[in-house]
Amino acid sequence: MSVLTPEATRLIESDALAHLVTLNRDGSPQLSCVWVGLDGDEIVSGHMMKRLKLKNVERDPRIVLSIESPSANEMGLKEYLVVHGSARVEEGGAAALLQRLAHIYMGPDAVFPPPGIDAPGWVLRITPERLGGVGPWA
Amino acid sequence: MSVLTPEATRLIESDALAHLVTLNRDGSPQLSCVWVGLDGDEIVSGHMMKRLKLKNVERDPRIVLSIESPSANEMGLKEYLVVHGSARVEEGGAAALLQRLAHIYMGPDAVFPPPGIDAPGWVLRITPERLGGVGPWA
Repeated sequence: MSVLTPEATRLIESDALAHLVTLNRDGSPQLSCVWVGLDGDEIVSGHMMKRLKLKNVERDPRIVLSIESPSANEMGLKEYLVVHGSARVEEGGAAALLQRLAHIYMGPDAVFPPPGIDAPGWVLRITPERLGGVGPWA
Repeated sequence: MSVLTPEATRLIESDALAHLVTLNRDGSPQLSCVWVGLDGDEIVSGHMMKRLKLKNVERDPRIVLSIESPSANEMGLKEYLVVHGSARVEEGGAAALLQRLAHIYMGPDAVFPPPGIDAPGWVLRITPERLGGVGPWA
């Protein structure tokens, strides 16, 4: 049973960026913005290079991510979703996932990764454990 | 000498939300979106209640924050600023700061905090140490 509500699902599947936080070796927070989608109950992102966030997750799976909503609450404050979760790194599948997400984030005709880049890459898979933020999911 | 570039300064002073990350007692990341502005070389946010992020910062000053830019780079990827920094909590001054920021985030006629709420509150003061993300600051 996923913790994701229909409103949270819609935002995760939209063209809004996810601010993804992982933990560095020294315990400090690391943050980068990524494209995200859903694969079943998991939030997924695709990576052609094994950068810091993937190495961090292999050592400590605790992550948090946030996504801004286009809506505002009754006080006029902008709504946003926070997802606390546990992440794991899977080899392969990055290019196909990035191409699927490029249609959402860049446009229906987008080609991404650029032609000629066809390494297997890595997919980050996040199991959502708890929602927060401001909005109908909090 | 601040690490902030003119482009980073403009984004911090805009109406874009900051995704602020602090560290919980157990080392896990905590995230919430806040209004931010500048006071000299420090990034500041105002808080009427002493919530988790302020208590976290008093224990561990390491923070990271991110702000989405309205611009995109030459590949069509949305730009965003990441600021790594060190934060401290100062008592008082929250209402005046929130009212100043409300003019930027809510509109020129906004009254915030709502009338009747006039506790001294707390101001979070962040010293930027390093910039990252995607854009002219990275």
